[in-house]
Amino acid sequence: MKNVWIAGIGMTKFGRRKDSLEDMILEAARNALVDSGYDDFDAVYVGAMHPEGFLGTSNLASVITDYLGLVPAPAMRVESASSTGAALFTAGFHAVASGDCRRVLIIAGEVMTRVPTSKATHILSQVIDGDERRHGATMPALAALSTRRYMVEYGLTSRELALVAVKNHANGARNPYAHFQKEITIEDVMSSKLICDPLRLYDCSPISDGAAAVVLTDTPSAIRVAGFGQATDLISVQMRSDLTHFTSTRIAAERAFKMAGISPADIGTAEIHDAFTSFEIIGSEDVGLFPAGGGRRALIDGITQHDGRLPINASGGLKARGHPVGTSGLAQVVEIVLQLTGKAQYPHPQGVRYGLTQSVGGLATNNLVTIMEAIR
Amino acid sequence: MKNVWIAGIGMTKFGRRKDSLEDMILEAARNALVDSGYDDFDAVYVGAMHPEGFLGTSNLASVITDYLGLVPAPAMRVESASSTGAALFTAGFHAVASGDCRRVLIIAGEVMTRVPTSKATHILSQVIDGDERRHGATMPALAALSTRRYMVEYGLTSRELALVAVKNHANGARNPYAHFQKEITIEDVMSSKLICDPLRLYDCSPISDGAAAVVLTDTPSAIRVAGFGQATDLISVQMRSDLTHFTSTRIAAERAFKMAGISPADIGTAEIHDAFTSFEIIGSEDVGLFPAGGGRRALIDGITQHDGRLPINASGGLKARGHPVGTSGLAQVVEIVLQLTGKAQYPHPQGVRYGLTQSVGGLATNNLVTIMEAIR
Repeated sequence: MKNVWIAGIGMTKFGRRKDSLEDMILEAARNALVDSGYDDFDAVYVGAMHPEGFLGTSNLASVITDYLGLVPAPAMRVESASSTGAALFTAGFHAVASGDCRRVLIIAGEVMTRVPTSKATHILSQVIDGDERRHGATMPALAALSTRRYMVEYGLTSRELALVAVKNHANGARNPYAHFQKEITIEDVMSSKLICDPLRLYDCSPISDGAAAVVLTDTPSAIRVAGFGQATDLISVQMRSDLTHFTSTRIAAERAFKMAGISPADIGTAEIHDAFTSFEIIGSEDVGLFPAGGGRRALIDGITQHDGRLPINASGGLKARGHPVGTSGLAQVVEIVLQLTGKAQYPHPQGVRYGLTQSVGGLATNNLVTIMEAIR
Repeated sequence: MKNVWIAGIGMTKFGRRKDSLEDMILEAARNALVDSGYDDFDAVYVGAMHPEGFLGTSNLASVITDYLGLVPAPAMRVESASSTGAALFTAGFHAVASGDCRRVLIIAGEVMTRVPTSKATHILSQVIDGDERRHGATMPALAALSTRRYMVEYGLTSRELALVAVKNHANGARNPYAHFQKEITIEDVMSSKLICDPLRLYDCSPISDGAAAVVLTDTPSAIRVAGFGQATDLISVQMRSDLTHFTSTRIAAERAFKMAGISPADIGTAEIHDAFTSFEIIGSEDVGLFPAGGGRRALIDGITQHDGRLPINASGGLKARGHPVGTSGLAQVVEIVLQLTGKAQYPHPQGVRYGLTQSVGGLATNNLVTIMEAIR
């Protein structure tokens, strides 16, 4: 398999934006084009989870390729629920790794704030198991179930859990791309509205608009795609053997580390899918950065702070940078590249060789892990 | 780039089905599993154009992978409007050609008949340019524009055009998978309802349900994927220089033939995207089987009949087999494999080495051509 490199990245500010999905995707893409120095591509990969439902937009891959002036480049859309941006990345990787394409543009975007919050929540909850949904389950409800079980098994308290939101908001406050750019306190989290016990409003990532782009190439550059892994899990959460950890992340991480030929100890920074605060702790354990229950300890001890031994979500994560669902998996890759190249404008570790992303699709039914390597 | 082979195929009967999308996809997939002899896969690629709009179904790739018992295989959905099944095929091809996957399952399905025809038509017309749509354009309207122009330039008459529907219905009548299994006459076509002048009801493919599946592998088998090509075009039809031919098909065909190292003269059978009868004639010229205007002559002379020199849509095509939008591009591949291996139950050419498919996404904004080779 050929090596694949990242030649350029681009991103928009996340948040409640007035721009159209097309305009946001074009903005991220143009930033990546400028960053890469390339302006023609063998293929365009476009990611969005549900532009039809959020906006009534169809045929997105063709539309974007046209608007970017990249016709007649081949184009397709990829979707895997909330891990869409990461699955998209692997599709583009395969095109280059096969030798069929020398250079591909990968762009993900989602505009979620144009519909009422109730409709956005409805769309998001459509990804879970139909039977569980008909019994009243929603994404936050299932995440709350997992969180409560983790608390019981590993002694995590609500005040400790709040540290994730406090940390990520502090990080996001220094990230110019972040949806939320204000620091919050434990008291802010603890006094915020209860969404689904034990998850409060500040334990949940926001509904956001935003786009991200990456240029992949077969030509050596400063960042190599060292590895990736993907795995699915049963749709029905009640059928799983473990509520506190996600098998799909574990298998995805094993595959990614095997491909990269390294171990979790080699990772110097990570972007973990903190759609809910507890998912950051669970995800950090599932990818192997900490043993089961060790994510809580690392959080309390400040190890995952931006200046700690192993920063997690130095960008602010989904919690503070925002979570335009189809974009997040690719935005994580962009953040890792910014950190590995020292270009991130927020405090982040320096001189790191390997950075990792972890993305969750649905209620952990389709998870991915990617590993990027800085070549120095 | 590694060679990629087709290890197995599967399909459901197309038509107005009572089964769920999931059940239809599972049926096609299981047929492909049995045909290939394999039951585990390195990845699952799922194609559907708009299951959310037609059915309210989300997270389809994870759902299908679970229901097939293939968890934790990686899975993603691919979409490119009405060429989804063909774009999906290229995504799976890249995964195997890269060496990352040794064996992938590719499945496409669409259930369109659960919504009223007016809603289905609305969903389908969302793929065209927004400005043209706001001025009243629909898919049939734009296709009619193209057809009328072709008639003016190449002297095609409505009675001649009707020969496409007559031929494909005769073919479909012998294909057990076809939506329509009855022969029709020129008079039937000419007296059918005018949809958009000059296109009549029998010039348009039906709204159908159906699923198809293909197993791709790096292990030599009887059918090799010899080549494929994909190209996009401007969304706005009025901005194009030529209404009677599709640049996206022409470029896709050039790429496919270059990859396969053969010329159009080597093709022994073809499945062309006849969503509208005129598209079969146009497509057959665009891929290079006939010169501009020569598709009309070939049709009149019977060259494209199942027992002619170069059969087109011996399966019945989209016109008679049916057109579940996300499925058709992959169903064409299945039909070509059935013909190349002599397993098609309908009359088809024998001993053919190369077969071709052509798929149209949107109003020819995202077209693909694939070429399969029979190894004897």
